[in-house]
Amino acid sequence: MASPEIEALTNALARLPGLGPRSARRAVLHLLKRRETTLAPLLSALAAVNERLETCGVCGNVDTSNPCAICADPRRDLRSLCVVEEVADLWALDRSRLFPGKFHVLGGRLSALEGVRPEDLAIDGLVRRIEAGGIDEVVLAMNATLEGQTTAHYVAERIERFPVRVTQLAHGLPVGGELDYLDDGTLAQALRARRPVA
Amino acid sequence: MASPEIEALTNALARLPGLGPRSARRAVLHLLKRRETTLAPLLSALAAVNERLETCGVCGNVDTSNPCAICADPRRDLRSLCVVEEVADLWALDRSRLFPGKFHVLGGRLSALEGVRPEDLAIDGLVRRIEAGGIDEVVLAMNATLEGQTTAHYVAERIERFPVRVTQLAHGLPVGGELDYLDDGTLAQALRARRPVA
Ligand SMILES: [Zn+2]
Ligand SMILES: [Zn+2]
Repeated sequence: MASPEIEALTNALARLPGLGPRSARRAVLHLLKRRETTLAPLLSALAAVNERLETCGVCGNVDTSNPCAICADPRRDLRSLCVVEEVADLWALDRSRLFPGKFHVLGGRLSALEGVRPEDLAIDGLVRRIEAGGIDEVVLAMNATLEGQTTAHYVAERIERFPVRVTQLAHGLPVGGELDYLDDGTLAQALRARRPVA
Repeated sequence: MASPEIEALTNALARLPGLGPRSARRAVLHLLKRRETTLAPLLSALAAVNERLETCGVCGNVDTSNPCAICADPRRDLRSLCVVEEVADLWALDRSRLFPGKFHVLGGRLSALEGVRPEDLAIDGLVRRIEAGGIDEVVLAMNATLEGQTTAHYVAERIERFPVRVTQLAHGLPVGGELDYLDDGTLAQALRARRPVA
């Protein structure tokens, strides 16, 4: 029988999205067989992430500094704030270099099904950032899913009392599409055609 | 853009079988979002495997001791040796509790396609174990694949000069089937009906 160490590693890997118990076992064998080239790099990468990365107290990004590099960057346009569901969406937009402003990560989307309520998301923090002033435009960059759009509407309502222009990404996004899966061209088009929230 | 730490972790995960770059990225986000419940256990499990597990110098098993628990177990039948391709196969057979003897892990199978030659496998070590004496039967428990059977034939030839009975698992195994994927019933049947290599 495999040792408890191997069982524990198999279980930990099996909890990752995309890996079930069977593929986790295969992955463990792969790691054991090629320790120098697979296990060692994975271990040190994981340890580095665990030790060095923290969540930015301003925007919710994950980075080696807090505030994160984006929040600390003086060349960024402070007046423009892009609200996204997840850190991955921030990365996708940042990778595209299309948005010159700052970000705000909600940490998810409203979902009756999954029991995600407004207080589970970083909406109060967003309201406080806008309240603090200096922001002219808030771009709602939620996914083009039912839950993403519900979240966008809720956020728009929560901030409508502030003197900011609230826009959202144009729905050139494929319906049901998730931001993180889109190419830069699609993102660019959606960003260019962004429109005020009615 | 994601930090170098995150890129390194994504790359390390993407090298695992069953995870591509896209699902590795998803896995990293999952780890970052649920650090306490996913990243921390995975890190400690990986560290434990890395620190505590070693390859048994006798049989090639992976265990917390060297020689491994199976090699060190005095209740095991020293006269019976089961040769398998991979550690996973050893575990599958050991889990079934059907084989009372000891094991020998080749560490792969001969493959012209993948350039795996006899000297890449632990065949010399097997020959030395048999040469040392005390073994009556060698059970070749290779996968019922073309490469597995080629390997079995090669090993059988290499050890035919010794006064040992060389058997192989009965081909009740589904053709193309891999040992690690079989239920204990199938394994039991194949083991019961094992036959001398012609
Ligand atoms: Zn930040
Ligand atoms: Zn051993």
